[in-house]
Amino acid sequence: MRRVGLVVQYDGTAYAGFQIQPAVATVQGELERALGNLLGEEVRVAGASRTDAGVHAQGQVVTFTTENPLPLERLPQALNDRLPGDIACSQAFVVPAEFHPRYSATGKLYSYRLLNRALPSPFIGRYAWQVPGRLDLAAMREASEAVLGEHDFAAFCAAGSSVRSTVREVRRLDWQAEGESWEARIEGDGFLYRMIRIIIGTVVEVGLGRRPAAAMGAILASRERRQAGATAPSRGLHLLKVYY
Amino acid sequence: MRRVGLVVQYDGTAYAGFQIQPAVATVQGELERALGNLLGEEVRVAGASRTDAGVHAQGQVVTFTTENPLPLERLPQALNDRLPGDIACSQAFVVPAEFHPRYSATGKLYSYRLLNRALPSPFIGRYAWQVPGRLDLAAMREASEAVLGEHDFAAFCAAGSSVRSTVREVRRLDWQAEGESWEARIEGDGFLYRMIRIIIGTVVEVGLGRRPAAAMGAILASRERRQAGATAPSRGLHLLKVYY
Repeated sequence: MRRVGLVVQYDGTAYAGFQIQPAVATVQGELERALGNLLGEEVRVAGASRTDAGVHAQGQVVTFTTENPLPLERLPQALNDRLPGDIACSQAFVVPAEFHPRYSATGKLYSYRLLNRALPSPFIGRYAWQVPGRLDLAAMREASEAVLGEHDFAAFCAAGSSVRSTVREVRRLDWQAEGESWEARIEGDGFLYRMIRIIIGTVVEVGLGRRPAAAMGAILASRERRQAGATAPSRGLHLLKVYY
Repeated sequence: MRRVGLVVQYDGTAYAGFQIQPAVATVQGELERALGNLLGEEVRVAGASRTDAGVHAQGQVVTFTTENPLPLERLPQALNDRLPGDIACSQAFVVPAEFHPRYSATGKLYSYRLLNRALPSPFIGRYAWQVPGRLDLAAMREASEAVLGEHDFAAFCAAGSSVRSTVREVRRLDWQAEGESWEARIEGDGFLYRMIRIIIGTVVEVGLGRRPAAAMGAILASRERRQAGATAPSRGLHLLKVYY
C-alpha cells in the first residue's frame, strides 16, 4: 500500500465544490472516478481544502492510498488523460502514512481577484469579481491590516460551520492593482467557512467608501457575522498553495 | 426604425457557434433573447462572423433594427444585465440602413493561441490549443509566409462550404512566442469555412517537424483539402476585430 499526494489545478465554475456530494459534479468525485479508472481500484481522496462551489485552485493537494504499483512519474499524464479539461494534475509524490493533506497543512495561500470596471468580461469575469466604481486602494490596505495576526474570526465565519475554535492566524493580506486588474493575496494557518470571501467582501465595501477602514477592528472584536460585509463571490477566489 | 451596431465579446465554450440553431445554445440566440427582452420587440441580429462552436470573440460586430427609442449609451449595460456571463456587449452605435456586419466588412483580425507544454491547464486550456513537444518557430514563420497574399485557399477550406469563390487575401500571419504561450495573429479580407483552423493545424505540423515548411506552397497549389493538415481545435481561435 502506498500513500500518494497530488497537486491539482481546477476551474471550479462547473463544480458544486471540492467535496463529493450525491447527484452533482464535484472535483473530488471527478478525481475519484479518474483515479479508479486508472488504477482499477475504488479510490477515496482527501483534499487540503474543501473549496466551495465556483472556487478555483492552482495548488490543491489531495492524497489517496493505492495498491497499484504504477510509477508515479507516469501518474499525472495518465490521470490527465482521464480527467475533464477543467481539472488537471501537475505532480504526484509518495507521502508518509500519517500525512493528511488538511491536518498536516501549516498554512494556505489564496488569491482573490477583482475586475474593477463597469463593462463585464466573459473571459476575466470567470475568474474575478467584477466591481464597478472607484476603489480606494489605501483604505482597503488599511482595512486589511486590521485582520493580520491571530484573532477570533467569528465575525468573518458563515453560519453552518461547526468548528471547535474560530481563532485563526492571518499572516498576509495585501493588495496589488494594475489598471482594472486587482488582486489580494491572503495567507494564514487555516480559514473558517467562507472567511476569506467575507473578509474580501467587507474590505471591498471599505474600498467603495461604504464603511470606514477603521471599522474593520470593531467588526472583528464584535465576533458577530452580521457586523461584517457581504460574502464576495466564489468566482474570484483561487487556492494557490498549501504549506506543510 | 434605427439600425444599430454592437461590439460583442464571448467565451464560445458553451455555445454551438454564433449562428442560431434549434434546441442548442448559440450566441445569436442569446443576443436575440436578451435584446427582445430589453426592447420589447422580436429582434433578429446579423453577425460579422459566423464563428464555429467553441470559438471566442473579443470584437464580434452584430446589427439589428429596432423601433425602440432607448438611448444607445444605455444599451450595453442594460443588455449585459440580461445576457449570460459569458457574453458581453461593449459598444452600441447607429449604423446606416445599408450597413451589413458581414458584407460591409473589409477585413477581419483573428488570434490563435497555443499552450506549448505537456501539462494541461484548466485555465489557459479553455482559450488555447495545448500542443506538447518542441515547436520550431522559424519553420512555422516560414510556412506562414507562404499563405500571405491573394490565393485560392480551396486546400484550406472544410467540406460543407458553398461559397462562390475560394479566393481570399491573407494580409498577415505572424507568430509570437513567450515561454509556453504562443500566439498567431491572422488578418485577411475574409476567411473560408474553417480556413484559419486548417492553416494553423498545418503550420503546427510544420512546427512539430512532421512536414517541411516548404510544403505549404505545394499544399496551397494543390487546392485539395486532403493535402493540408488537421483542423486545429476551435478553443484556440479568437475573433479580435472586424474592419470596415
